[in-house]
Amino acid sequence: MANICANMKRCFSPPALRAYFAEFFSTFLFVFIAVGSTISARMLTPDETSDASSLMATAVAQAFGLFAAVFIAADVSGGHVNPAVTFAYAIGGHITVPSAIFYWASQMLGSTFACLVLHYISAGQAVPTTRIAVEMTGFGAGILEGVLTFMVVYTVHVAGDPRGGGFGGRKGPAATALGALVVGAVTGACVLAAGSLTGASMNPARSFGPAVVSGHYSNQAVYWAGPMVGAAVAALVHQALVFPTVPEPAPAP
Amino acid sequence: MANICANMKRCFSPPALRAYFAEFFSTFLFVFIAVGSTISARMLTPDETSDASSLMATAVAQAFGLFAAVFIAADVSGGHVNPAVTFAYAIGGHITVPSAIFYWASQMLGSTFACLVLHYISAGQAVPTTRIAVEMTGFGAGILEGVLTFMVVYTVHVAGDPRGGGFGGRKGPAATALGALVVGAVTGACVLAAGSLTGASMNPARSFGPAVVSGHYSNQAVYWAGPMVGAAVAALVHQALVFPTVPEPAPAP
Amino acid sequence: MANICANMKRCFSPPALRAYFAEFFSTFLFVFIAVGSTISARMLTPDETSDASSLMATAVAQAFGLFAAVFIAADVSGGHVNPAVTFAYAIGGHITVPSAIFYWASQMLGSTFACLVLHYISAGQAVPTTRIAVEMTGFGAGILEGVLTFMVVYTVHVAGDPRGGGFGGRKGPAATALGALVVGAVTGACVLAAGSLTGASMNPARSFGPAVVSGHYSNQAVYWAGPMVGAAVAALVHQALVFPTVPEPAPAP
Amino acid sequence: MANICANMKRCFSPPALRAYFAEFFSTFLFVFIAVGSTISARMLTPDETSDASSLMATAVAQAFGLFAAVFIAADVSGGHVNPAVTFAYAIGGHITVPSAIFYWASQMLGSTFACLVLHYISAGQAVPTTRIAVEMTGFGAGILEGVLTFMVVYTVHVAGDPRGGGFGGRKGPAATALGALVVGAVTGACVLAAGSLTGASMNPARSFGPAVVSGHYSNQAVYWAGPMVGAAVAALVHQALVFPTVPEPAPAP
Repeated sequence: MANICANMKRCFSPPALRAYFAEFFSTFLFVFIAVGSTISARMLTPDETSDASSLMATAVAQAFGLFAAVFIAADVSGGHVNPAVTFAYAIGGHITVPSAIFYWASQMLGSTFACLVLHYISAGQAVPTTRIAVEMTGFGAGILEGVLTFMVVYTVHVAGDPRGGGFGGRKGPAATALGALVVGAVTGACVLAAGSLTGASMNPARSFGPAVVSGHYSNQAVYWAGPMVGAAVAALVHQALVFPTVPEPAPAP
Repeated sequence: MANICANMKRCFSPPALRAYFAEFFSTFLFVFIAVGSTISARMLTPDETSDASSLMATAVAQAFGLFAAVFIAADVSGGHVNPAVTFAYAIGGHITVPSAIFYWASQMLGSTFACLVLHYISAGQAVPTTRIAVEMTGFGAGILEGVLTFMVVYTVHVAGDPRGGGFGGRKGPAATALGALVVGAVTGACVLAAGSLTGASMNPARSFGPAVVSGHYSNQAVYWAGPMVGAAVAALVHQALVFPTVPEPAPAP
Repeated sequence: MANICANMKRCFSPPALRAYFAEFFSTFLFVFIAVGSTISARMLTPDETSDASSLMATAVAQAFGLFAAVFIAADVSGGHVNPAVTFAYAIGGHITVPSAIFYWASQMLGSTFACLVLHYISAGQAVPTTRIAVEMTGFGAGILEGVLTFMVVYTVHVAGDPRGGGFGGRKGPAATALGALVVGAVTGACVLAAGSLTGASMNPARSFGPAVVSGHYSNQAVYWAGPMVGAAVAALVHQALVFPTVPEPAPAP
Repeated sequence: MANICANMKRCFSPPALRAYFAEFFSTFLFVFIAVGSTISARMLTPDETSDASSLMATAVAQAFGLFAAVFIAADVSGGHVNPAVTFAYAIGGHITVPSAIFYWASQMLGSTFACLVLHYISAGQAVPTTRIAVEMTGFGAGILEGVLTFMVVYTVHVAGDPRGGGFGGRKGPAATALGALVVGAVTGACVLAAGSLTGASMNPARSFGPAVVSGHYSNQAVYWAGPMVGAAVAALVHQALVFPTVPEPAPAP
């Protein structure tokens, strides 16, 4: 009981509140850019799917935007910006379950708020949701999202390594920034690889906000189950693969 | 009175003059590339707004160009390249008000000179100004510019942190370069996100130069008020968020 | 005989098995992104070769994807992700021949598995193989693949230098990440330079997987011989050029 | 006389010969990618100038390619890859005149050899030269090339600083790699800014090779005079601006 009280207290300590704000703002930034770039590209091409250059636009926007989003939160919250990443770190024991729940709430709020701002500002443009290509089954889409998220979250684990749930720490600021860069790059690459198939969400928060604001909740199950399973497997594989060489795993907020 | 004299003297010391030149040249470089890339893309597509690839071209040009512009000025002037960034640093107390005014003048001159050179060289091409999409109100555009600038200036503060108004210093040359890279990246991402809505200026100097040279001053209020407010809020939020962990804020030029 | 036994034992030690997995997974990631981006771009453009933006999409996807693939494997296996790179390191004596053979098998398996997943997930999309432009001869294509691979593998050697078959080590984590970045960048540049001519494979594994899954084995000889010869020459030139200076890196003129 | 002999001897010392090879190969790589990407993009678009995506393709190829070209030569020759850069370093006294002449010859040979290989391999594709838009005068084009080269060479000087004609040295491998990255980025940005006006050569060797192989020597004067003057002014401005702070270059971490 005292343990729970202490845990709760830690969840509202100033560093924890700062971490929640950092996750809120970084997810806001990332989703604002991901959804905004889709809107901007669509305004330039009458038929949204008629050209690879609109796919390029949103992929590069997400790569650059996630680089910045992870970078600015790295030293404050670990730079998750993605409920699936938080889930993976919770499984690996790098973040406590109550903290993870507050991280999730912050990420979901950030995403929804970004879509609300875009909705009211962009004067009549519908907020685009991630969509599954008509040729695909929901199950296939879930597998694909899972595979993509596995690749991204495994990269996050390598970039956030040594040792313990996030960037910063012993590796110095240059390594932190480069870890954020590689996470952005692999995300952009995955958007290019699968953008035409499932929209390449790989991030439940990135799909949740547009769904709330547009009211189209179809396929939310796919965009939650796929990434969560992929992220969990990535955490386990990374731990199994590199654990033997780990002397002391440090705790994260 | 003696205080003012001393202040003025410091504003004309060799390091200060070098800083003004650095801001002049970096803003010249950035605006030359931002405006030039719009001209070059327009020459290749009869209808300027018909394709997402022209948006990509100017977004990537601005990302790469601002990376270089911030990089080359970082150790001399702090690499602001943007009156809104200078304003944010003035609010945070990292630069004195007289210095900030000279920074502003240098940035405005650099932008205007870049547009003049482009105007005379590019033989008959009109210098394109940042424009607001017809569907949007001026107020909505100001909000959007403010939100975008908030995201960029918050990133600038994180990149320019520890400690005090600029790059360089304790973090070493690699961290300085990576800070410039992330500032360029988030700017490019914002251009992709909002290029079709307001042109994604996020920088009063970037909108001022083309307006002077083309003679179209409409909406200048939007491109000044939005970014200035957004930058000020970013400075306050960043300070409120991380101030408790700051032991000693160092002075900037 | 005892020597062979010891060698074999080392090939199945935990670090060696981890290295094989790293090569398997990194090649999976790279080929998944390279082939997936071609599929995604093709779904957006009815005629696959009608626009430079689909070339951009796959080039940027490969640049970002290879950056991540090399980064995540760098400290575990050296981050080869390419049988031609492994061949070059074997020639240079940085990896033993039995290890190289296991690396090759891992890379080939990773590539094939990536194409299988894409085949089953992407519902009816054919897995695209690297192809030679109709105007070219097979010999010319082999020369071109050799020249491209020479440029890539020479860059890999410089990035993986000092000293001995891979990244990591003395240069620190930032230099390792930047080495991965430059390898990704030069690969993306080569795809842009020769994508319309031979598909710019520069990597036998990247051509092998799609061939197995699609059943089109034509020109496999070109995609093996060209890169292998180019990589071998790169290893020899790099060794001849820099070997004498190994004790102490000399200053620039 | 003995002085000249000693100078000449130094010009044929093993480190000097290695530097010439490095310049030869890096210029080969850069020009191969710059010209090859133009050919590849042109094969995908019947009308070469009809789309901004072909400009993007060659700009990104040059950014990524120059990043790699400078990176692989940085520790051997200083990574000039451009006669205008060598000229600027000669003016600044960072390289002797005889060395500069050998650097120039190596760069010109590398460029010509790259175009020859492309000519013979690409089966019937004409080697594209840099061209001036019909609306422009030769004088305006020279000014534009000069301004662009000023921006690039100034960036090269900042990236190659402290202290003396090249990368490497005290700043450590990460700073060297990031210096190469920023040089590539500013070059790509300049190509996007002026690609439709003069082709954005900014490098006499990059214009010389295609001219030799295609036999079209028109406007060579523009592509030599503009960049040379721009580079010389950049060297002088950089020296005038930062020389007073030279006394103590700070050590890297």
